[in-house]
Amino acid sequence: MQSPNAFRGMRDVLPGEMELRQRVLESVRSTYRRHGFLEIETPAIESIHHLVNSNGGENEKLIFKTLKRGEKLDLTSIESVEDLVDGGLRFDLTVPLARYYGANHSRIPDPFRAIQIGPVWRAERPQKGRYRQFYQVDIDILGQEAPISELELLLASSEALCEVGLTGFEVRINDRRILEALIGYFGIQVEAKEAVFIALDKLDKVPRGEVEKELISKGVLAKSIGSLIDSLTGTTHHEMMNTFDKAGVSREVLENLERVIHALGGGRRAYSVVLDPLVIRGMGYYTSMVFELSHPRWNSSIAGGGRYDKMLSRFGQAGGACGISIGFERLIALLLELRQDTRSSQRRLSLIYDPNIDLENAFEKAATLRNEGYLVTMVAHEGRKKSPIKRLAMEAEELRSQGSVGGVWRYWMGVDDVPQLLLK
Amino acid sequence: MQSPNAFRGMRDVLPGEMELRQRVLESVRSTYRRHGFLEIETPAIESIHHLVNSNGGENEKLIFKTLKRGEKLDLTSIESVEDLVDGGLRFDLTVPLARYYGANHSRIPDPFRAIQIGPVWRAERPQKGRYRQFYQVDIDILGQEAPISELELLLASSEALCEVGLTGFEVRINDRRILEALIGYFGIQVEAKEAVFIALDKLDKVPRGEVEKELISKGVLAKSIGSLIDSLTGTTHHEMMNTFDKAGVSREVLENLERVIHALGGGRRAYSVVLDPLVIRGMGYYTSMVFELSHPRWNSSIAGGGRYDKMLSRFGQAGGACGISIGFERLIALLLELRQDTRSSQRRLSLIYDPNIDLENAFEKAATLRNEGYLVTMVAHEGRKKSPIKRLAMEAEELRSQGSVGGVWRYWMGVDDVPQLLLK
Repeated sequence: MQSPNAFRGMRDVLPGEMELRQRVLESVRSTYRRHGFLEIETPAIESIHHLVNSNGGENEKLIFKTLKRGEKLDLTSIESVEDLVDGGLRFDLTVPLARYYGANHSRIPDPFRAIQIGPVWRAERPQKGRYRQFYQVDIDILGQEAPISELELLLASSEALCEVGLTGFEVRINDRRILEALIGYFGIQVEAKEAVFIALDKLDKVPRGEVEKELISKGVLAKSIGSLIDSLTGTTHHEMMNTFDKAGVSREVLENLERVIHALGGGRRAYSVVLDPLVIRGMGYYTSMVFELSHPRWNSSIAGGGRYDKMLSRFGQAGGACGISIGFERLIALLLELRQDTRSSQRRLSLIYDPNIDLENAFEKAATLRNEGYLVTMVAHEGRKKSPIKRLAMEAEELRSQGSVGGVWRYWMGVDDVPQLLLK
Repeated sequence: MQSPNAFRGMRDVLPGEMELRQRVLESVRSTYRRHGFLEIETPAIESIHHLVNSNGGENEKLIFKTLKRGEKLDLTSIESVEDLVDGGLRFDLTVPLARYYGANHSRIPDPFRAIQIGPVWRAERPQKGRYRQFYQVDIDILGQEAPISELELLLASSEALCEVGLTGFEVRINDRRILEALIGYFGIQVEAKEAVFIALDKLDKVPRGEVEKELISKGVLAKSIGSLIDSLTGTTHHEMMNTFDKAGVSREVLENLERVIHALGGGRRAYSVVLDPLVIRGMGYYTSMVFELSHPRWNSSIAGGGRYDKMLSRFGQAGGACGISIGFERLIALLLELRQDTRSSQRRLSLIYDPNIDLENAFEKAATLRNEGYLVTMVAHEGRKKSPIKRLAMEAEELRSQGSVGGVWRYWMGVDDVPQLLLK
């Protein structure tokens, strides 16, 4: 016998959770379609050359690489991994989308509003709750420079989260160019930019003192760090905007931010919208506005994205590009934690029958019940054996514990020659 | 600039086809759910040991293998491919399901009716219309020995095909044990069994003479081959059954076949059901009943499956197992060829507005239209520029050519200060 475990760092999805996943996916997909986005799909494998040097940051080190085949694989003269592989599993949906846009530009609308739903793979160190295969749900607008894209994306994704029953989340918006301007304004050398980005990104997780120590160790002046962090935290929206203006952040950058925050926050919404200059995002490819959606019950963001105007030209079709990605596994875990029953579920029914007595009657009855809207499972049960009712109830309980919201009903026929519908 | 092409032998899905794919998937999924099947998912990567020696036939040679990582990968002492890889992309959904059943047995109903929808990967020689990543849509019943499984699977999958608008297809049923008995009956040596299976599998594609020649070259007596093929072709259902009975096929095998064919063919169906002793199926893991669904407009089967009782014990949970797989790419290609408009489509609408005049009004109007059921795309258009109407119409035409059934409507506001809804 072989071990039946899933591949290292990956996992099987049980039926109850799968039901929840499908319901949430359908809801999000339908919201995104209402907003005029069109779904596409790219292959799981991309050429290894497309994946590396893609500004994908740490993720490039985590690629699952696929072996060359046939004559291309020559085991006698291997000098490095590059001689062995020609493909890799995608680590996000953004790099493949940029390639897709280059390849299919003439056959898609312009600007192009894309939905992508699918697994990505990253060989991260296995740890609780994080897996090496996980789903992302992305929307992107390609070929539109105006910051209307940001507004469209944030409206659609916030609405999508509301539709699956999530409320009380926060939309945090920033523009990377603010931090870049502040770094110069507070006299921090340009070469320390990446170190500052990385250190500030931790401010919501580690104490301020540690972040300062980290940067001092990299040669940044204590005074500069202090002023920088002061300007970013603990002040009002208005004060921040004033500082950013004084620091030389361009008017256009600030006006665009105000415009998006205002338009998004207007009216009575089930979520809040704030300027958060500490939203940075890990990917190197973001160029200007960046954003995250987070929930008080969860310590990392539920969705995130931004503008990455420079990526498309890599594949021959330059143009503005902006996207947001829902971390689907986190969303599902959060919904399970909140025990959020999204939408009504269909009624699941077990039709118990004796196959030796009335096979055809039972199939006919099942068809009728299905037409009435039941999800009908046929349960073959010979009259003399012990009743399966208890087992069915246990199975329903197990499915519920996995995230399914369906109950259990049963229809009994043939065994006592008296068909009866028992609804629990 | 890098080439934007998809990875060798794989392809991107355009938005119009994606719309059709999603609609068909939703319909099939919903039919299978009505029949009491529960959806699950397994990771794309399986341990390489699970994939090889799995009775997967030729497919085992076509595995995309993934490179070991970190310390496990030692480039200094490579003797064979086995030293390099520890995982592979699944080549079907059946081997992963058997593993899943072993791993999750205590948390799923018994018997277990599984739905699996997802891509599989096979590095076949690239050729027109065949790709190295393609979708399969499978249902299986695990843990039930009775041939009721076969009936349930065939009923559900035939209904699923009818629901997506396919009619006039044929369900062809066989039992591998018939051919095994006939081989003995007509004096063919047992060792030639596999060769006979492979040769007979071609009878619908190549002339009978060639099949006979092939088998004679393998040492089978011409007379035996002639009698065997005579008994399988050009005779009535009744005559075939008589021959099989005389040849010593067990009564139970024949009765089960009759029962399934009778129950499935009863009533007024949009498809026909026949006994076809030439249905063999490539996979080595099938043990008894096998079946295919085919359509006169297509030269290979649309779906196929059978019973594979011996596979589950490999992962520690023995039990009866039976499944059917829809070749999803073939189904989509056939629907596109038949220009089958499945179900009504939602109304797609472009809201054309001038972002400098009335951004917020436009977003508000879009929300209203979405509530009314439109799929609304925001089209930013400055008053003085040329109208985007013509381009939108061309884009709609392109989407239709890809399989989308949506039309194009437009809502114009702001540009002339007169909002108007233009429906095409």
